[in-house]
Amino acid sequence: MPEYPTALGASTPTSITLLGHDLASEVMGEVGFGELAFWLAAQRRPSPGETRVFEAVLAALADHGFTPTAIVTRLTYLSAPDSVQGALAAGLLGGGSRFLGVTEDCGRFLHEVVAAQDPLPGDDAGWDELALRTVRARRQQRRLIPGLGHHVHKDGDPRTPRLFEIAAEEGLIGPHLSLFAAIGRVHPAVLNRTLPLNGAGVCGAALADLGLPLELLRGFALLARTAGLIGQLAEELRRPVANEIFLSVDLNNRSIPPEPFPTGESHG
Amino acid sequence: MPEYPTALGASTPTSITLLGHDLASEVMGEVGFGELAFWLAAQRRPSPGETRVFEAVLAALADHGFTPTAIVTRLTYLSAPDSVQGALAAGLLGGGSRFLGVTEDCGRFLHEVVAAQDPLPGDDAGWDELALRTVRARRQQRRLIPGLGHHVHKDGDPRTPRLFEIAAEEGLIGPHLSLFAAIGRVHPAVLNRTLPLNGAGVCGAALADLGLPLELLRGFALLARTAGLIGQLAEELRRPVANEIFLSVDLNNRSIPPEPFPTGESHG
Amino acid sequence: MPEYPTALGASTPTSITLLGHDLASEVMGEVGFGELAFWLAAQRRPSPGETRVFEAVLAALADHGFTPTAIVTRLTYLSAPDSVQGALAAGLLGGGSRFLGVTEDCGRFLHEVVAAQDPLPGDDAGWDELALRTVRARRQQRRLIPGLGHHVHKDGDPRTPRLFEIAAEEGLIGPHLSLFAAIGRVHPAVLNRTLPLNGAGVCGAALADLGLPLELLRGFALLARTAGLIGQLAEELRRPVANEIFLSVDLNNRSIPPEPFPTGESHG
Amino acid sequence: MPEYPTALGASTPTSITLLGHDLASEVMGEVGFGELAFWLAAQRRPSPGETRVFEAVLAALADHGFTPTAIVTRLTYLSAPDSVQGALAAGLLGGGSRFLGVTEDCGRFLHEVVAAQDPLPGDDAGWDELALRTVRARRQQRRLIPGLGHHVHKDGDPRTPRLFEIAAEEGLIGPHLSLFAAIGRVHPAVLNRTLPLNGAGVCGAALADLGLPLELLRGFALLARTAGLIGQLAEELRRPVANEIFLSVDLNNRSIPPEPFPTGESHG
Repeated sequence: MPEYPTALGASTPTSITLLGHDLASEVMGEVGFGELAFWLAAQRRPSPGETRVFEAVLAALADHGFTPTAIVTRLTYLSAPDSVQGALAAGLLGGGSRFLGVTEDCGRFLHEVVAAQDPLPGDDAGWDELALRTVRARRQQRRLIPGLGHHVHKDGDPRTPRLFEIAAEEGLIGPHLSLFAAIGRVHPAVLNRTLPLNGAGVCGAALADLGLPLELLRGFALLARTAGLIGQLAEELRRPVANEIFLSVDLNNRSIPPEPFPTGESHG
Repeated sequence: MPEYPTALGASTPTSITLLGHDLASEVMGEVGFGELAFWLAAQRRPSPGETRVFEAVLAALADHGFTPTAIVTRLTYLSAPDSVQGALAAGLLGGGSRFLGVTEDCGRFLHEVVAAQDPLPGDDAGWDELALRTVRARRQQRRLIPGLGHHVHKDGDPRTPRLFEIAAEEGLIGPHLSLFAAIGRVHPAVLNRTLPLNGAGVCGAALADLGLPLELLRGFALLARTAGLIGQLAEELRRPVANEIFLSVDLNNRSIPPEPFPTGESHG
Repeated sequence: MPEYPTALGASTPTSITLLGHDLASEVMGEVGFGELAFWLAAQRRPSPGETRVFEAVLAALADHGFTPTAIVTRLTYLSAPDSVQGALAAGLLGGGSRFLGVTEDCGRFLHEVVAAQDPLPGDDAGWDELALRTVRARRQQRRLIPGLGHHVHKDGDPRTPRLFEIAAEEGLIGPHLSLFAAIGRVHPAVLNRTLPLNGAGVCGAALADLGLPLELLRGFALLARTAGLIGQLAEELRRPVANEIFLSVDLNNRSIPPEPFPTGESHG
Repeated sequence: MPEYPTALGASTPTSITLLGHDLASEVMGEVGFGELAFWLAAQRRPSPGETRVFEAVLAALADHGFTPTAIVTRLTYLSAPDSVQGALAAGLLGGGSRFLGVTEDCGRFLHEVVAAQDPLPGDDAGWDELALRTVRARRQQRRLIPGLGHHVHKDGDPRTPRLFEIAAEEGLIGPHLSLFAAIGRVHPAVLNRTLPLNGAGVCGAALADLGLPLELLRGFALLARTAGLIGQLAEELRRPVANEIFLSVDLNNRSIPPEPFPTGESHG
C-alpha cells in the first residue's frame, strides 16, 4: 500500500494540525492570512518583516481594474451564476505568460544570473558591473529584459520605489532586488533609452529574495488576484457591467465570409 | 459608448489607486493581505477585530490535507506542469456544494432565519427559543441543518469553540453566530442525538456576521483554499506523490463490459 | 487493495480497447466522432438515426457567435497564449445555468412530467391534454416553462422545427419531444400569448428521447461548445479581436468611490 | 465604435447562420459532428476522406482509461456535483505538455522540418534521407524526438499503423506523415534501438497533414478528450469510484514534519 506523506493539514477525531501546529490554538487568531500563505508555501514561518514585504507584493498584484482576468470572471458569473468557483477559476486561467507572467519571468531571470555568480557583488558598483554584463549579453541575444518597461507607467511605476523602500525598511534587500535595482541604473547606457522597472518585475525580485519557490512565483500573483477577483464579483453583484460588456461586443459583431485556413506546407 | 464604473483598481501614467486610495503609499506596506481581501469584497476597511476574525476563518479553511481539491491540483500539475494557473483553477473547481459548500449554505440558512426575525432575541434564552423553532421546522421538512455534524470530528470540531472565542474577544458575536450557538445547544432535544457544530458552518456564520456578501461566502473559502493549494504544489515539487496516486488507480483498474444506459422512460 | 472497474479505455502492451472493442481495428476509421461521443456516454452504440439526431443537436449548440463563453475564451487566450487548455476550460465554465443550462433544464422538466405519467398518451390529443395540465400547474406556481421563449427569435427559433423534422425522419419522436411539441401548441391558451419553443429546449427534449443521462445533458451542450470554442480560437489567431474587446472596456472604465457593503441584517 | 468581424455563428430574428450557411437547413442533419469541428477550425468544409482521418484521430485520443484527467474529472464531480462544466473544465486543464502535449509537439516538430525543406522529397528514399539528417541533428542536440517511444506499447502502438492505413486509403499521406514514417524506419540506425512511433505522435502528424492550425493541435486532443470525460462522468454516475480513490489517498496519508524551503541563492 503506498503512503502519501504531507506536512500540511492533518486531522484526527479530536484534533486538526497544520504544518505541525495545532490549528485551533496555534494558528487561528494567531497567524495572519498573508503570513499563513507564506508559511504553507515555504514550510517555515516568515518573520514579521518577511510577512510585510510579502503582503506588500500581494497588494501590488491584487487588482488592476478591468483586466482580461476581471472581465472574464464577470462574464463567466453572468453566464453561470450558480458557480462562483467557476467564475474565479476562469479568471485565474488568464494568469499566464502575458499578463501575470512577468512576476515569474523576472524572478527566474534574476535568479539565473544570481545563481551563476560566486561570490556575489559586495556593493552597488559590483552590482552595476554585473547588471551591465547581463543587459549587454541579453541585448546581443536580442532578448527583452523581464521587468523592464511598462505600457502605461512610462516614466516610472509607482509600486517599484515603494517596494524597494519597504524591503529596505525590513532589511530584506537580497541579491535579486539588488540586481534588479542595478539593471534600473545601468540599462540606459546600453539600450540608449530609459525604461521603468515595472511593478510586476519588482514583485518577482522581492519574492525570489524571500526564498519562495521560483516555480510558483506565478502562484503568488494568482493568490493576490483571487482576492481581487472576489472584489470584482462583489462589485458585479451590486453594479453589474458584464451584460453590457457582452452586448457591446455582440451588438457590434459583423458577419464576414469564412476564410479557409491555408492547407499544405504554407500554414503555421 | 458605454461606461464601466468601478471603485477597484485604476491607474494613470503616474499613479495607481485601489479602492480610492493610493496603492503605493497607502496600501502597500500598510494593509495586510487578509485585511485587503475583506476591503476589496466589502468596499470598506475592516477594523482590526474584524480582520482577526476574518483571518481566523481563512486559516480554518486553508488546507485539510489530501482532499479531492488537493489531489486534483497535484494531478493536474503532474499532467500539465507548464500551467500553474491550470493546476490551481482545477483544484478550485472542486469547491462546490459538497466539500466547500457548507460555509455558504450555513451562512445563508442562518441569514434566512435572522432576516425574518424582527426584533432579534436579546438574550440566550431568546436565541434558544428561535433555534428550537428553527430546528423543529427543519426537521418536519426532513431537511438537514447546514453546519451540524462532521464525519470525523464526531465529538466536536476543534475549530468551532476557537472561532466563537476569537469572535467574542473582538466583540463580534452577531446574530448569525448567536443563532448557530443556540442551535448547538437545543438540537439534541429535537433530534435525540448530539451533533457537533462543524468548522465550515461556524465559518459561514462568522462571515455572515462580518457583513460580507452571502452570495460570495463560498468565494472566501476558495481564497483560503488557494493559499492551501499553493502549499500543496510547493510540497509536490519537493515530495511528489501525484504520479504514485495516478498509478495506484491506473494499475488497479479492472476492465468490465459496457453496461448500456437504460433507454426509455426508466432513466434518470 | 481497491479495484476500479471501467468499461472505457484500457490497454495492454499490445492492444488498446475502448468500450470492449479493439480501438485500432473496430473504432478508428469505423466510428464517427458524434457516434463515439454517444457511445461513450450511453455505453451502447447508437443507430445511424440516433447518431443523426444527436449530431443535429450538437450542430445546433456548437456556436452562437460572440457569446460570453466565446469572449471569455478569446480573452483568456490573449492573456495566457501558452495554455490552449486554459482558454477552452475558461470558456466552458460559462456553461452554467443561464446560457447553456436551458438544454438540461428543459430535458429534466419534461422528464419529470413524462416519468410521472403512466400510461403515456397515445395521440396528439392526449399529449395536448397533458401539456395543458402541465402548463397550468406551472403557471399556478408562477414558474417559467423551460424551453419556451427566446429573446431574439421571438416569432420562432429556426432550429426547432428542423430538429422535429430530423427526429421524425428517423422515427425518433419520443415522449419528451411529443410533450414539448404539445406545450408549443397549447400554451397560448393558458398564457394568453404565443412564445416560440427555443432551440436549446428542443435539444434537451431530443437528448432525453435518445435516452442519454439527464444529469449530463449540459455536458453534451459543452461538448458541442468545445468545437465552437476551438473555432473561436482559430479565428482569433487570424483575425484577433480580444485585445480590442479588452481595450473597449478598460478605456471606458470610470473610477467611482467605494460603496461600502451594508453590514448587519440588511445584507443579502 | 469598434466592430468585431466573425465568420462563425450569427443570427437575426428569423435566421441563424454558421460559417455562412443556414444552420437549420444546411448544417443540422447534414453535417456530422467531426466534420463540423473541422469546418469550424479550418473555415473550410473537409472532404469525406479528410473527415474520416480527422475522426480516426479523435477516436484515438478520446479516452485512455484512468488517466490523471479522468481521475480529476471524477474527483471534481464528487466535490462539486452541481457543476458538470467545472468537472469537465478541471479534467481538460490536465491537457498540457506532459499528457496531451505530444500530439502538438510532434505536429510542430515535423512541420518545422517540412517547412524548411524545398523541394520536398519525392520518394521514400528521399524521406529516409531527410529523416536521417533530422534524427542525427536532434541527437546531437541531445533532444528527444517527439512521437517516438511509449511507456506501455514498447513494441508498437496499435494506433499508429492503423492511422497510416486510413490516411493511405483516403489518399491523405502528406509530408508530415511521410516524414514521421521515415523517422520510424531510420531512427534505429542512429539511436541503436528501435522505438515505436506512438499514437499521440501519429495523430499530430495526421492533423498537420490535414492543414489544421498547428497552434491548436492540442485543442483537437482536448475536443476528443471532452467526449471521453463525459463518458467518465456517465460511468461515475452509475459505478462511482471517485470517493474510493479519495479515501485511498486520504486514509494513507502520513503526517511528517515541515521541511523548510531553503532560503538564499541555493533555491530553485
